Amino acid sequence: MRAEIISIGTELLLGEIVDTNTPFLANQLSLLGIDLYFTSAVGDNAQRLSGVLRQAWQRSELLITTGGLGPTQDDITRDAIAGLVGEKIEVNEELKQHIINFFARRGIEMPQSNIRQATLIPSATAIPNPQGTAPGWWVEKDGRIIIAMPGPPGEMQFMWQNEVFSRLQQRTGATFLSRMIKTFGLTEAKVDELLAHLMPSSNPTLATYAKLDGIYLRIAAKAARPEEAQEMISRREADVMAILGDVIWGVDDETQEGIVGRLLVAKGLSLAVAESFTGGFLTHTLANAPESESYFKGGLIATSDEVKVALGLDPQLVTGKASAEVATAMAILARRKLGASIGIGIEGESRAESVSGMVPGTVFIAIDSEQIKLHTVQSYSGRLYQMRRRAAYYALFDLMKLLRSI
Amino acid sequence: MRAEIISIGTELLLGEIVDTNTPFLANQLSLLGIDLYFTSAVGDNAQRLSGVLRQAWQRSELLITTGGLGPTQDDITRDAIAGLVGEKIEVNEELKQHIINFFARRGIEMPQSNIRQATLIPSATAIPNPQGTAPGWWVEKDGRIIIAMPGPPGEMQFMWQNEVFSRLQQRTGATFLSRMIKTFGLTEAKVDELLAHLMPSSNPTLATYAKLDGIYLRIAAKAARPEEAQEMISRREADVMAILGDVIWGVDDETQEGIVGRLLVAKGLSLAVAESFTGGFLTHTLANAPESESYFKGGLIATSDEVKVALGLDPQLVTGKASAEVATAMAILARRKLGASIGIGIEGESRAESVSGMVPGTVFIAIDSEQIKLHTVQSYSGRLYQMRRRAAYYALFDLMKLLRSI
Repeated sequence: MRAEIISIGTELLLGEIVDTNTPFLANQLSLLGIDLYFTSAVGDNAQRLSGVLRQAWQRSELLITTGGLGPTQDDITRDAIAGLVGEKIEVNEELKQHIINFFARRGIEMPQSNIRQATLIPSATAIPNPQGTAPGWWVEKDGRIIIAMPGPPGEMQFMWQNEVFSRLQQRTGATFLSRMIKTFGLTEAKVDELLAHLMPSSNPTLATYAKLDGIYLRIAAKAARPEEAQEMISRREADVMAILGDVIWGVDDETQEGIVGRLLVAKGLSLAVAESFTGGFLTHTLANAPESESYFKGGLIATSDEVKVALGLDPQLVTGKASAEVATAMAILARRKLGASIGIGIEGESRAESVSGMVPGTVFIAIDSEQIKLHTVQSYSGRLYQMRRRAAYYALFDLMKLLRSI
Repeated sequence: MRAEIISIGTELLLGEIVDTNTPFLANQLSLLGIDLYFTSAVGDNAQRLSGVLRQAWQRSELLITTGGLGPTQDDITRDAIAGLVGEKIEVNEELKQHIINFFARRGIEMPQSNIRQATLIPSATAIPNPQGTAPGWWVEKDGRIIIAMPGPPGEMQFMWQNEVFSRLQQRTGATFLSRMIKTFGLTEAKVDELLAHLMPSSNPTLATYAKLDGIYLRIAAKAARPEEAQEMISRREADVMAILGDVIWGVDDETQEGIVGRLLVAKGLSLAVAESFTGGFLTHTLANAPESESYFKGGLIATSDEVKVALGLDPQLVTGKASAEVATAMAILARRKLGASIGIGIEGESRAESVSGMVPGTVFIAIDSEQIKLHTVQSYSGRLYQMRRRAAYYALFDLMKLLRSI
């Protein structure tokens, strides 16, 4: 079944709101294994909406619309669908009573305009909307399905989850499963090159995504039974692991900070951070991990040598130049001062090369504990906030590898 | 000029990412007074992308695409455009050198696949992309313009703001000007209510946007000459200021941290922070402000009472309960320890009321200097990361008001 999502509303074309309905529905369709080839947005204009619907009707079997079911003159989705299938709109007494009751519960008489929301065409059945006054429409005609839902995300999602999803699931036989594999340290082009022979496969499929915390790989498989799909994914995952090895750090919704936290808890260790270059991004990332209070002690963020010395760094060491030695001293300082078993220090250079004698974006990362002594030098480019994020994720990746090895 | 936005990438159709490029561009087009009638998303499929481009070419004069300019086999936007206009893709030596240099700066040899990003067709000129390896394409043919930009929002927005916007502005006759007015402390519904009589105006228009650092108001005016549009905006801004008064903290692309920084520099003051509840978000926000090294000393982030004491807080004071006293002591500690003239302390409670005896989301903010002593209590609801952001912005808003008053 080929599906198409159409978002309706002029506000979408003014950039005043971000359409979160489309990604929600796209994700849900992928869970159902329904192919989604197109999404579009169109304003509250009868002619243009009709054009978009007509085209979708020609190229897709399932049309999902959001928006345009309100009570005002601007809400033209019902009329456009009626026009598309050549049917006449009529008031439905049961729906009318439902809307009258909805207002009565709030002590209000139904505004006359809301009668528009109590209408159907012969091919449509109403989809209940306990969250609002606009019922959805489920239209079946000529081997095609149109599902029209309201635009407010709360109403739409409730309707989808309670009514639409299960009905669609009954229509699709197959099972679809997917797995996200997360890597760090290779460019997207490099990952693509290494896996080039696996990329053309259409089942399971393999796709790459560039994120700030690395390159992600998504394996998706379609099969008659869940076990089969799972088996296809496991086999492809093994292929990928054999090639990429230890650049893989996690899967699905795992985060680097979450894995680091889990490893620290499992080993009874705790962590503290001292940052200069990254300006608190690493501390903030670690503090935001759920339950992190149990292993993350905190951070010391210094923006100048003066402050580094005030926090306890040896003035002899702090000479205005970023170095592995300073990063290491910061790691030790964080660990001792905040009473953690492991310290991370991040130091770097963002000034021009003519000032510092170093390529801007050069970052020194040190990890220090009783057992571990590690430091690395990396070089990043891009905007400062991107370099900061990459450096922080690099430190997490380093720590993760270390924790897995001990 | 009728425009159409096309987002390209299978990930958009899997619901894995929310397309923020389309609302950004939709908003920008409205500033330029360019009509946007359709937006759509299509996957990395040559046939379907070609179909979407062909249709857009028929019904619109300006086609803006995002995505599909990467180095991999999946990145097919260039090929699809070449096919649409019937031209041949060729490697451009200048672009090639740019990409080789981009990698050389990172000490990496250019992966062979990146050569795809160094290509053009005769009707296309390259749009520079200092943020990445993929240049954009500006294609002009048969009275139509195609602007192809990369998908990563940072790269796309930089390219748009530095290259594309002004070129498009030259093409449109009328002048559109807008002004964003930024407030903090009122709900969107309240702002809407206070300005209800100004909302229906169609020129200048007024629209509200809810952001984490407050409610924004956008005034937009259209006129034959820039001075006229400016005059309309100034008059409406005066109306708004008369009503909202001191909840307005800034305009246009000003940020709270930027304004705080400017005020600190002007008054020769410096700032340091001690955070627990906000987990480093305030420190990170301040450190990310441009040139902040000159006035922002750094931050101390403690996630437990133990660490607060290790950092120098009086053990008698730290009793497991968030309070104005602890927030004040933290502000003083940050100021003294990091050698700043002003300290901010943020303390709060995120545990259940049954554990702490306090509503979760209760936050204590203290600001301390030789001259200033201030503390406030706020209560937030929502998810923890939202509460953290709101608390940090509240502290900045408090400090801004104080700095403006002294």
